[in-house]
Amino acid sequence: MVVVSNRGPLSFTIDDEGGLIARRGAGGLVSSLAPLVRGTGATWMAAAISDGDRAAAGGGVIEAEGFRFRSLAIDPDVYRMAYDVISNGTLWFLHHGLFDLPRRPRIDRRWREAWDAYRHVNHVFARALIDEAPEGATVLVQDYHLALVGTWLAQQRRDLRAVHFTHIPFCGPNALRLLPTDAAEELLVGMASHASCGFHARRWADNYVSCCREVLGLEPSTFVSPLAPDHDDIAAVSDSAACTDEMAWLDGKLGGRKLILRVDRIELSKNLLRGFHAFDDLLQTRPEWRGQVVFGALVYPSREGLVEYLSYRQEVEGLARLVNERWGTADWTPILLDMSDNFPRSVAALKRYDVLLVNPVRDGLNLVAKEGPLLNTNDGVLALSREAGAWEELAPAALEVNPFDVAGTADVLAVALAMSAEERADRAIALRKLVEMRTPRDWFDEQLSAARAER
Amino acid sequence: MVVVSNRGPLSFTIDDEGGLIARRGAGGLVSSLAPLVRGTGATWMAAAISDGDRAAAGGGVIEAEGFRFRSLAIDPDVYRMAYDVISNGTLWFLHHGLFDLPRRPRIDRRWREAWDAYRHVNHVFARALIDEAPEGATVLVQDYHLALVGTWLAQQRRDLRAVHFTHIPFCGPNALRLLPTDAAEELLVGMASHASCGFHARRWADNYVSCCREVLGLEPSTFVSPLAPDHDDIAAVSDSAACTDEMAWLDGKLGGRKLILRVDRIELSKNLLRGFHAFDDLLQTRPEWRGQVVFGALVYPSREGLVEYLSYRQEVEGLARLVNERWGTADWTPILLDMSDNFPRSVAALKRYDVLLVNPVRDGLNLVAKEGPLLNTNDGVLALSREAGAWEELAPAALEVNPFDVAGTADVLAVALAMSAEERADRAIALRKLVEMRTPRDWFDEQLSAARAER
Repeated sequence: MVVVSNRGPLSFTIDDEGGLIARRGAGGLVSSLAPLVRGTGATWMAAAISDGDRAAAGGGVIEAEGFRFRSLAIDPDVYRMAYDVISNGTLWFLHHGLFDLPRRPRIDRRWREAWDAYRHVNHVFARALIDEAPEGATVLVQDYHLALVGTWLAQQRRDLRAVHFTHIPFCGPNALRLLPTDAAEELLVGMASHASCGFHARRWADNYVSCCREVLGLEPSTFVSPLAPDHDDIAAVSDSAACTDEMAWLDGKLGGRKLILRVDRIELSKNLLRGFHAFDDLLQTRPEWRGQVVFGALVYPSREGLVEYLSYRQEVEGLARLVNERWGTADWTPILLDMSDNFPRSVAALKRYDVLLVNPVRDGLNLVAKEGPLLNTNDGVLALSREAGAWEELAPAALEVNPFDVAGTADVLAVALAMSAEERADRAIALRKLVEMRTPRDWFDEQLSAARAER
Repeated sequence: MVVVSNRGPLSFTIDDEGGLIARRGAGGLVSSLAPLVRGTGATWMAAAISDGDRAAAGGGVIEAEGFRFRSLAIDPDVYRMAYDVISNGTLWFLHHGLFDLPRRPRIDRRWREAWDAYRHVNHVFARALIDEAPEGATVLVQDYHLALVGTWLAQQRRDLRAVHFTHIPFCGPNALRLLPTDAAEELLVGMASHASCGFHARRWADNYVSCCREVLGLEPSTFVSPLAPDHDDIAAVSDSAACTDEMAWLDGKLGGRKLILRVDRIELSKNLLRGFHAFDDLLQTRPEWRGQVVFGALVYPSREGLVEYLSYRQEVEGLARLVNERWGTADWTPILLDMSDNFPRSVAALKRYDVLLVNPVRDGLNLVAKEGPLLNTNDGVLALSREAGAWEELAPAALEVNPFDVAGTADVLAVALAMSAEERADRAIALRKLVEMRTPRDWFDEQLSAARAER
């Protein structure tokens, strides 16, 4: 088995004597995959990102921390273009529907160079697989950074059984038309060249199928396999001393008030602004909740290299300040905006919330919506966007949020806050059951099955 | 027959003695419809917009200028909310895909009031039809301002044969989810309550059908009937002295250079910014065209009551200035930005262009793309967005523009400018033939047929 992904399970730094020091890689995908791959003997290929990674790339497969890791050297400028302009600046925006279309995207000469860079990066991965993957191996290609890898495998290594898994949404045919026709075709051909393409939700798979029908005139193979959180992993953090300390800190901040919580990256798709607007509306329309509830927003900056993210963060901070100025009193700060990226604190808050607000405008899955109910010890209510992939699984026990509907979101928050203890308990039990129906292992095994299925 | 539309064929002012003075109404829809309805004896109902209109509304049907006109009184504040917030601020943005989704739309309490106002305005129209339409009359309901009229007609006047015609695009199911579920259902039920719904292009009809299937679980009746310009009308202006004067003015400005032309409202969907970026790219990548070509942008402000339009206009002006500063010389201004809304000048420019750029990000039809080839006497090339409804008819003889692709648009402009005289002539003839295949009368008659067809 070979796993390929943009980031790997290890990253390297160079010490004073020029030696390589391996560390655990970061990122959501790696956290989910690493425990499943560790110790299996599978090779994991990823892009060399740091100088240390590039030094490691010269050494072939490196065995460390239970991984057989292969770091792939890519020219840093080429990698940056592919990653910033195409993966995060185009495909992420496209599939999440984040473009301000009168202005963006602007497919210019630089974009075309970046698309060539994206193709090149994908080809580096394909080349390594073609040269190094064992005969008949199963290949798990992860995410939108690597949509084209299948193209070359289908041409040169038909013995391999490769599946592609997309961790983000997939857009419909109307949106795909934003891309130049040749790029759209190349993208879909690349994905459809895998034995099958997996998604976290039926809706994204259906969109992908519609795109393939309309653009390529073919019916691709897909499978739907939502990821789940690792119960043990979460339990371990939940029981840690750090988490207990953070719980004490949080209790001090709350002073016995109710907690509406969100835990997110500061990310355009996460819909932080409308969350605050909804809270503002709640305080406006339901005076009885003034002074009685805190909106904890544990959110941490990301991708601040893209100007859109920097300005979004500023809007988020500005709006939180505005709401706090409008409603705050000497002893009550309505919004607790915490950007410290403190994992034990997030876990403590997830144990404690009364209402968890997960209101993305679009989201491939949203793991927080599943981690919350597993961790929570307070019969907390989940207010969940119908645009999150997790909605397909959790709808029976969550409250439905239309993320564009600020007034509707406020109404949902009010219902959640006022819900009877019985209903809260019933829903909390039901949610936990729904989440516990799947493990990361199920997700992983379903990729293997899809790879091995006869077409 | 009864025609209903937001704006009517007449508008009224009050003279010093309190008498009503009727004038011809303005707007693209009215210009197309008025000659078809005049003298037929049909009643035309429209909203009372000015104080004069509201005074006229008290008088029942007014006969003037060949029309039997019925002005409907609506509370001005209610009308404004329906028109600004829902019709132009929501439905227009939704169907054209213009929302910056991380921020807009924001469905708040005010939006819900506005939706009630929209329903109320639609009900005023329905009420008038219910009370006043002759037994068995054919009713032509025009455009997205009046999507709900059919609801009440289907309940209370099943003898009427009502069709709805949408002059803008229609969004797909993914986009429709921006609306609250109840509003989306109300919208689709309203439209589907007509005997049939018409669109300028197959693509918009298909989107509407997909929405009805997904949200309502029903298969609605649709028809596709693209509007066409009135040949005689255009010829009359083309032959006028005013047009001849403007042609002389334009020739003076061009000084024998080639003309790339656009004629548009300053409207987010029209994609003015990427048009200028493409021209900038053309001058950058093809130095041979520097000093040899002028980009005439005859564009006039609209909807400046909406902040998005005001700031868009400023961006348009700023970018034109930037390109002119970058490439202009003592005797050559690359972009001629004319915001004077001078109709004879637009007609003169349409007669004269070498290349007509019509690159909307989405457009129900785009009449300019059809008027240009009818008027042009210079074998001008049409560079047409594949996102315009007119693309479905004109594709065989136009050059295809992906409106998001600035580099690609520049390439198309370069091809158009360098095209051989033979190919230009062949395409111009073919375009004219395609446009002349239909008249406004065809469009009108197809609505009548759809109304009268057995289901």
